[in-house]
Amino acid sequence: MKPNPFFSGVSRRALLSTLAALPALAGTLLPNSAPAQTATSGGPLPSWNDGAAKQAIIKFVRTTTDKASPDYVPPEDRVAVFDQDGTLWVEHPIYTQVVYCLERVPAVVAKQPKLKNVEPFRTVLSGNREAMARLTMHDLEKILAATLTGMTVEEFEAEVKKWLETARHPRWNRPYTELIYQPMLEVLRHMRDNGFKTYIVTGGGQDFVRVYSERVYGIPLEQVVGTVGGTKFGYDKDGKPFLTKEPKLLLNDDHAGKPEGIHMMIGRRPYAAFGNSVGDRQMLEWTAAGPGARLKMLVLHDDAAREYAYGPAAGLPDSKVGAFTPALYDEAKKNDWTVISMKSDWRRIFAFE
Amino acid sequence: MKPNPFFSGVSRRALLSTLAALPALAGTLLPNSAPAQTATSGGPLPSWNDGAAKQAIIKFVRTTTDKASPDYVPPEDRVAVFDQDGTLWVEHPIYTQVVYCLERVPAVVAKQPKLKNVEPFRTVLSGNREAMARLTMHDLEKILAATLTGMTVEEFEAEVKKWLETARHPRWNRPYTELIYQPMLEVLRHMRDNGFKTYIVTGGGQDFVRVYSERVYGIPLEQVVGTVGGTKFGYDKDGKPFLTKEPKLLLNDDHAGKPEGIHMMIGRRPYAAFGNSVGDRQMLEWTAAGPGARLKMLVLHDDAAREYAYGPAAGLPDSKVGAFTPALYDEAKKNDWTVISMKSDWRRIFAFE
Repeated sequence: MKPNPFFSGVSRRALLSTLAALPALAGTLLPNSAPAQTATSGGPLPSWNDGAAKQAIIKFVRTTTDKASPDYVPPEDRVAVFDQDGTLWVEHPIYTQVVYCLERVPAVVAKQPKLKNVEPFRTVLSGNREAMARLTMHDLEKILAATLTGMTVEEFEAEVKKWLETARHPRWNRPYTELIYQPMLEVLRHMRDNGFKTYIVTGGGQDFVRVYSERVYGIPLEQVVGTVGGTKFGYDKDGKPFLTKEPKLLLNDDHAGKPEGIHMMIGRRPYAAFGNSVGDRQMLEWTAAGPGARLKMLVLHDDAAREYAYGPAAGLPDSKVGAFTPALYDEAKKNDWTVISMKSDWRRIFAFE
Repeated sequence: MKPNPFFSGVSRRALLSTLAALPALAGTLLPNSAPAQTATSGGPLPSWNDGAAKQAIIKFVRTTTDKASPDYVPPEDRVAVFDQDGTLWVEHPIYTQVVYCLERVPAVVAKQPKLKNVEPFRTVLSGNREAMARLTMHDLEKILAATLTGMTVEEFEAEVKKWLETARHPRWNRPYTELIYQPMLEVLRHMRDNGFKTYIVTGGGQDFVRVYSERVYGIPLEQVVGTVGGTKFGYDKDGKPFLTKEPKLLLNDDHAGKPEGIHMMIGRRPYAAFGNSVGDRQMLEWTAAGPGARLKMLVLHDDAAREYAYGPAAGLPDSKVGAFTPALYDEAKKNDWTVISMKSDWRRIFAFE
């Protein structure tokens, strides 16, 4: 367990460096530069172009499920883990859950009007994104605590569900839950069709992701491992028990917290791990360290036209959300982890294309 | 999350009040006073006598799985939770995991010889159970920390596995993993046959129970929710990653910690909950508070001849391991929770009878 901060899975720099970019992006509704192509093969991964990445997935699944293979894995051990932000859905220009927290501020202030003139709530209400980009980590923690805790688990679920229905991504003007990578949905399905249990292992809030994981990814909520805040059991005036979300960090499910969270929540070392950033490094290392065939894959965002280009593809330092740093890229090459190029490996990116 | 102590799921009084009784019990190999009867019906619960408890289980399963029933529960929501100690296996005269910790002390001292003359290790090594019964909570924490942490997760698993092969319960002189209640194994199977996911929700250590849960209960380790200590990710001298068990309490899975742990690890409110002590009270209340048909059951230890009699059956105050207190008994009666009498509801107790 990490000491503090409450929600240190999200770094201030990563969050705020992108805030200023939001208004510009909101006006940039790019045309779909790469229209969807219909699948040309009857295989399991129709949105993937043929190449090393697709072949690595196909080969891994074949070799671990063929009883005659030396790398055969019994069904109960078939665990595949997937980072969410930047691996299963879009993380730019800002993590979806952080957008949720910022957009929840007016509702929080409506319930506690005295917060209206209190920082950092006043700045968020102002809508001045340059001022927001100057918020401190301590300010951000206050916003996260105010919007993610203090309500019952059912109230939180209902609020997130409602928000997801109306919130729109500024670039595509679509619900966030449509900004899922179609090729990754096909990987999830292919894995499950072959007896793998698919888990999300995210730095995002576990309770947040569980609201839509089944509907969007086909992953039941008990297979979502995320950053975990504590809850507190209590009774209402009629003696009925309830659980309140508390501002206490139990698991910071990022970096080293990912293998730690996998041990706590799953108890088995994964055979396959998909990520896209330095936060996934230890999860891939932990996966790779087991015997037999292990699939280690990193999504490289190198497609500015259809999605975004950042990390090594854009020559960016690790100052951006979900950074795929040069050091991570080197580690991947050195250890034969497979890098997925969105630009060349993915025939299409979203289902709506 | 609870503040301290490290392993507060186990109360000092509960642990130590029974230690002095061990030598006496070790010599008391009671004859099996109630020999096994063969099942007289072809139904799902052959080791249960007909009665309110058996009928409650049968009726609950029927009503929640019949699509025409107003209480029908879709398969993904069929969650049943089971306390372990005193509900699935014998908890007297002392929790099995605590026996493990005490019996591990010589091995720990062999590796760190300077502990030999340090309390509380010296007292445990002496074998003087009266002196052991005077150990403080702080002493006990030292023993738990020394025997449950400081090794890799794989080392711990191997140690527990090895211990389980040779350790014997003093009364029956059998492996602890044979002291499982046969009627409860039949409930687990009946639930699973009807699409319920069965979980263990125990105050015991999650990593400990996971070692044998699949083999003994047919419950995969990812469906074991227990008291959770932190792990720490690190690298060995060759750069290979490993996880070390740390003396940090992340979840004290007892009392209010049970519904909190269920929320964290499962994310769904159970439809059925089985327990036997005050530590299970909040789990049953949380289960009961959901809409529709909910099964709430408490095992009453009232069979001194075949197992043990304690709690209300023996007129004991709540000073004993796994106490089923008079207050809990009253709450059960008031709320129509079903009390299972081991003596009259269970035709046989163990598979070996």
